[in-house]
Amino acid sequence: MSDTAFPVTARNRVRREHHRGSYDKDAVYAVLDAAPLCHVGYVIDGAPYVTPTLHWRVGDRLYWHGSAASRFLRASADMPVCLTVSLMDGFVLARSAFNHSVNYRSVMAFGTAHLVEDSAEAAEALRDFTEGLFPGRWETLRPMTAQELKATSVLWMEIEDAAVKTRSGPPRDAAESDVPVWAGVIPMRTQLGAAQPAPELPAECVLPAPLAELIASGRLR
Amino acid sequence: MSDTAFPVTARNRVRREHHRGSYDKDAVYAVLDAAPLCHVGYVIDGAPYVTPTLHWRVGDRLYWHGSAASRFLRASADMPVCLTVSLMDGFVLARSAFNHSVNYRSVMAFGTAHLVEDSAEAAEALRDFTEGLFPGRWETLRPMTAQELKATSVLWMEIEDAAVKTRSGPPRDAAESDVPVWAGVIPMRTQLGAAQPAPELPAECVLPAPLAELIASGRLR
Repeated sequence: MSDTAFPVTARNRVRREHHRGSYDKDAVYAVLDAAPLCHVGYVIDGAPYVTPTLHWRVGDRLYWHGSAASRFLRASADMPVCLTVSLMDGFVLARSAFNHSVNYRSVMAFGTAHLVEDSAEAAEALRDFTEGLFPGRWETLRPMTAQELKATSVLWMEIEDAAVKTRSGPPRDAAESDVPVWAGVIPMRTQLGAAQPAPELPAECVLPAPLAELIASGRLR
Repeated sequence: MSDTAFPVTARNRVRREHHRGSYDKDAVYAVLDAAPLCHVGYVIDGAPYVTPTLHWRVGDRLYWHGSAASRFLRASADMPVCLTVSLMDGFVLARSAFNHSVNYRSVMAFGTAHLVEDSAEAAEALRDFTEGLFPGRWETLRPMTAQELKATSVLWMEIEDAAVKTRSGPPRDAAESDVPVWAGVIPMRTQLGAAQPAPELPAECVLPAPLAELIASGRLR
């Protein structure tokens, strides 16, 4: 595998006519890292399932987790999965229905799901997950118990191949600007809002600075 | 099928311990209708694929569309699909890593994808789609040509079974409030922003009132 791009395969091949695709690793990483939420697709008895979950990335590895009792996690272990991350950035309104579109960033990443078997490794992965979302938080938490760790399954996959597709900018039908209808982009943006303390939170437990900074930053993670 | 709930099947069964699931049709519709974006899962040669697309609903039917040249649309016709819609409403921060969670609304809907074969029916579906997002817009657009209609595939599925899962509210670990760490919810919200007119838009093409109202409403569609 190249250091800078994922291989082009039958399954991640982006149609060339769209000019919206790339296999560039940095471009793939940027989308994977921008969103906390992904959708994992897997197959049980020949039928497709798509489950939303939070993911995190370490190099070319993607991780996600859930209850050890989860059918979904049990079913996907050692199976091929497609992990898709999508950010919708806006509606694109054109002069014809046909030229309407969406501004978006999306990655489809393919690999084989594996369960993290070693409990110390699972704990380390969960630490990466927590710290990736909320830097500095892990050390301030009540430590995980052995039972909690046992009740949590962490899965990972090596990204075997992936592709990013994006669209941005205004509608592409300037040639039809004589059609007397509004055209342009209505942007869509997901943001964090003001923190809501738990009802029983002691007054001395103030919002940590990194969380306040995250909320102010406009980033989601 | 009941008028008010989808059947409970092997594939949509929500684990009871979570108390977060429902098969109630109105609850399923509410989530499907709140988000413009879905993720469609399908199987090609035994492997899973998950593609983001926009969906719309008419009764118990879900629709989506794309380029007639799309591998994804061709591959999913007459195949079982899982259409998942997820809205992430916030991060739930607790006193332990284990009790961290996410506030969300999500539906997994199962069915068999079918191509809309009749071109008048496809045009009607695309009209529903456009009007559902932007009421009153269809009549103001340059009409679709026969060629554009031919280049657009519309797919639909009857929802055979579906389940909604949601979580809301603060962390559930009030009993651990002696742990000196901030706990609560950081809400996440997706909103439409100020409309961006296309660069070449004539000055007389003002933003229609329904679009201005949509942007002001806080809804996404």
